[in-house]
Amino acid sequence: MQNFVFHNPTKILFGRDTVAKIGPETAALGQKALLVYGRDSLKKSGIYKQICDSLSTAGVSVVEHSGVQSNPMLEHVRAGISKAREHDIDIIVAAGGGSVIDSAKAIAAGSVVAHDVWKFFNGKKSIKAALPIVTVLTLAAAGSEMNSGMVITNEKTRQKFGFGHRLLHPVTSILDPEVTFTVPPDYTAYGAIDAVAHVLEFYMTSRDTDTPVQCRLMEGLIQNSMEACERCLLDPQDYGGRANLMWTATLALNGLTGAGLGRVGFPMHMIEHSLSALYNVPHGAGLSVIIPGWLTWFCQQEEARVAQLGENIFPVEGYQRLTTSAMAERTITIFRNWFSKIESPVSLGELEIPPSDIPGIAQNALTLARFWRLNEYSQQTIEEILHLCK
Amino acid sequence: MQNFVFHNPTKILFGRDTVAKIGPETAALGQKALLVYGRDSLKKSGIYKQICDSLSTAGVSVVEHSGVQSNPMLEHVRAGISKAREHDIDIIVAAGGGSVIDSAKAIAAGSVVAHDVWKFFNGKKSIKAALPIVTVLTLAAAGSEMNSGMVITNEKTRQKFGFGHRLLHPVTSILDPEVTFTVPPDYTAYGAIDAVAHVLEFYMTSRDTDTPVQCRLMEGLIQNSMEACERCLLDPQDYGGRANLMWTATLALNGLTGAGLGRVGFPMHMIEHSLSALYNVPHGAGLSVIIPGWLTWFCQQEEARVAQLGENIFPVEGYQRLTTSAMAERTITIFRNWFSKIESPVSLGELEIPPSDIPGIAQNALTLARFWRLNEYSQQTIEEILHLCK
Repeated sequence: MQNFVFHNPTKILFGRDTVAKIGPETAALGQKALLVYGRDSLKKSGIYKQICDSLSTAGVSVVEHSGVQSNPMLEHVRAGISKAREHDIDIIVAAGGGSVIDSAKAIAAGSVVAHDVWKFFNGKKSIKAALPIVTVLTLAAAGSEMNSGMVITNEKTRQKFGFGHRLLHPVTSILDPEVTFTVPPDYTAYGAIDAVAHVLEFYMTSRDTDTPVQCRLMEGLIQNSMEACERCLLDPQDYGGRANLMWTATLALNGLTGAGLGRVGFPMHMIEHSLSALYNVPHGAGLSVIIPGWLTWFCQQEEARVAQLGENIFPVEGYQRLTTSAMAERTITIFRNWFSKIESPVSLGELEIPPSDIPGIAQNALTLARFWRLNEYSQQTIEEILHLCK
Repeated sequence: MQNFVFHNPTKILFGRDTVAKIGPETAALGQKALLVYGRDSLKKSGIYKQICDSLSTAGVSVVEHSGVQSNPMLEHVRAGISKAREHDIDIIVAAGGGSVIDSAKAIAAGSVVAHDVWKFFNGKKSIKAALPIVTVLTLAAAGSEMNSGMVITNEKTRQKFGFGHRLLHPVTSILDPEVTFTVPPDYTAYGAIDAVAHVLEFYMTSRDTDTPVQCRLMEGLIQNSMEACERCLLDPQDYGGRANLMWTATLALNGLTGAGLGRVGFPMHMIEHSLSALYNVPHGAGLSVIIPGWLTWFCQQEEARVAQLGENIFPVEGYQRLTTSAMAERTITIFRNWFSKIESPVSLGELEIPPSDIPGIAQNALTLARFWRLNEYSQQTIEEILHLCK
């Protein structure tokens, strides 16, 4: 096991009827809140009213900043920062999924400095302070509600960049599974795929193999994501399914899985971010295209790791013994088939991205590969992987 | 899944050469430290010197409070509180295992109030403040380094009582697996048993069965404890074994396993605490006596739970199908045999406690049962369980 620091101070309030706690949680930290959210769905579901009522009762004044898109955009973040400065905001309330929470984090960090927020993303400045953030989660997926990371797309440079900083941990996150009853099937599936992908990135790219604590945790989280997702698709109001998916997605990227693994990479996300940045593909849909292709490419180097995962989470019935190679292939097939089963795309073709676009996608991904120091990924390597995703 | 609050702000510094970080971590919080530790082993291993050097370099002055015993005693805690008041201590540094850290917690809470510290334990007062605590862990076992709990024995009333409060979370805990290289085989085993017991308590007493996230986490932690313990017994300087045991024991009682289970009980600990309080039995040794007997008794009510655990962590080879009853019995046998294998006692007889003592032990345990609101445990029930531990 490698040395690590684990420090996750975010408080989680989980369960039924917890949304109304947002007021007191916010009021303990600030009085003038910027309420960051997406679109009308929050209003339709009644969550918006619950949040506003709770904030108002707790004496918190609210300035709204709505319209966050999935794959959140830099310009919209900049507008939020202007608003936060103009209204002397002292706390950010995020109500949404990963995109909303990531936008809230960027606003929280960007509104306390004089320079442009993108300088944090391209590495020219580092975060020294941030406004406190509290969240009401509405989508089980990104894990941003209990971690220090954020991802924003610069629409001008077509870069979807992300990084983490300890000051970006939300102080409190409210996770009410009932809030996700209205998440449509496609985004329920994309969320589960995102959680699976987060775990896979750590599992596959760890250089340390003497990490049974982490491996067992990760294997369980993948199984949970898949099982819980299927329950939610079968019955969107299955509380247990929603609750298990929600908590699994949070644990999948809250620092626990990676603690002790040493330096890991996020190569599947690295390539997917280009699909999102260039074609505005939903993140989970992009991931289900990249994962099987990347795993196939990865098997050229670490077939045994892929086989080990399959052996532990997709056990072969009875006495049948497969070769490592066959087990690895079977594992990839199971993931691909499962993505198809939950109606997420598994090829660039399904996204209507022609093979002729591959060099351009690889070029875009290469910038992020360099920023994330994934130096083993060249233009040629990324193209090779993308050809396995056709 | 039941509603829950999860909030664990303790920062963990894990790995090789981390002990020397105690100085800066302490200096960030206080200037006058009470250094709480046990006996000579800390000095023999050189850890004591490392800690003192680091604290001194960081400009922290130190008052010593050594001599904490396993099953830490109230009088010794009271003496620590007097010292803390006398020297105007502003931070507690604990260097040891669960007993030392629990003593440190009791001193941290007791030294900021005028009343006697035992009033927290018998429920007459509640904690409203505490000095900050930082720890250097020297034994993988109790989990106190990353949780809010503490257990202290009142030697006069012969009560070993414990409870938790959020202000008792250590601010920082340093976990260097190499520090545990010198832990002798018996205490290595007792520590692993304590971790297994912590997980078993949650797993068995949860009233909610729709908790696959938690169940898989717990199953993995039991497997890890057992595997890692065997590695450490085989080679006390196996870094991977020590590291995996240490992190497993921490995760086994840091709040994660119980999040979502609803109200759980600690019945095996409840009964074991009486063995420790009355006979000063090492906690892990007492647990290995109680666990098989309690599980056997528990099978009268929830055989399926015991069988499920065994199915998942001790899979039966091939196609063999066991009845629920046989699988539950097999699970208990595997635990009992494993305790014996690692040379921990599995009967009251091995502890030289005669059956005639059972009523007295049960009477002692009953006080804690009432304090912990384990109302389903009568004198008769506890006696019945203890007879299964003969």
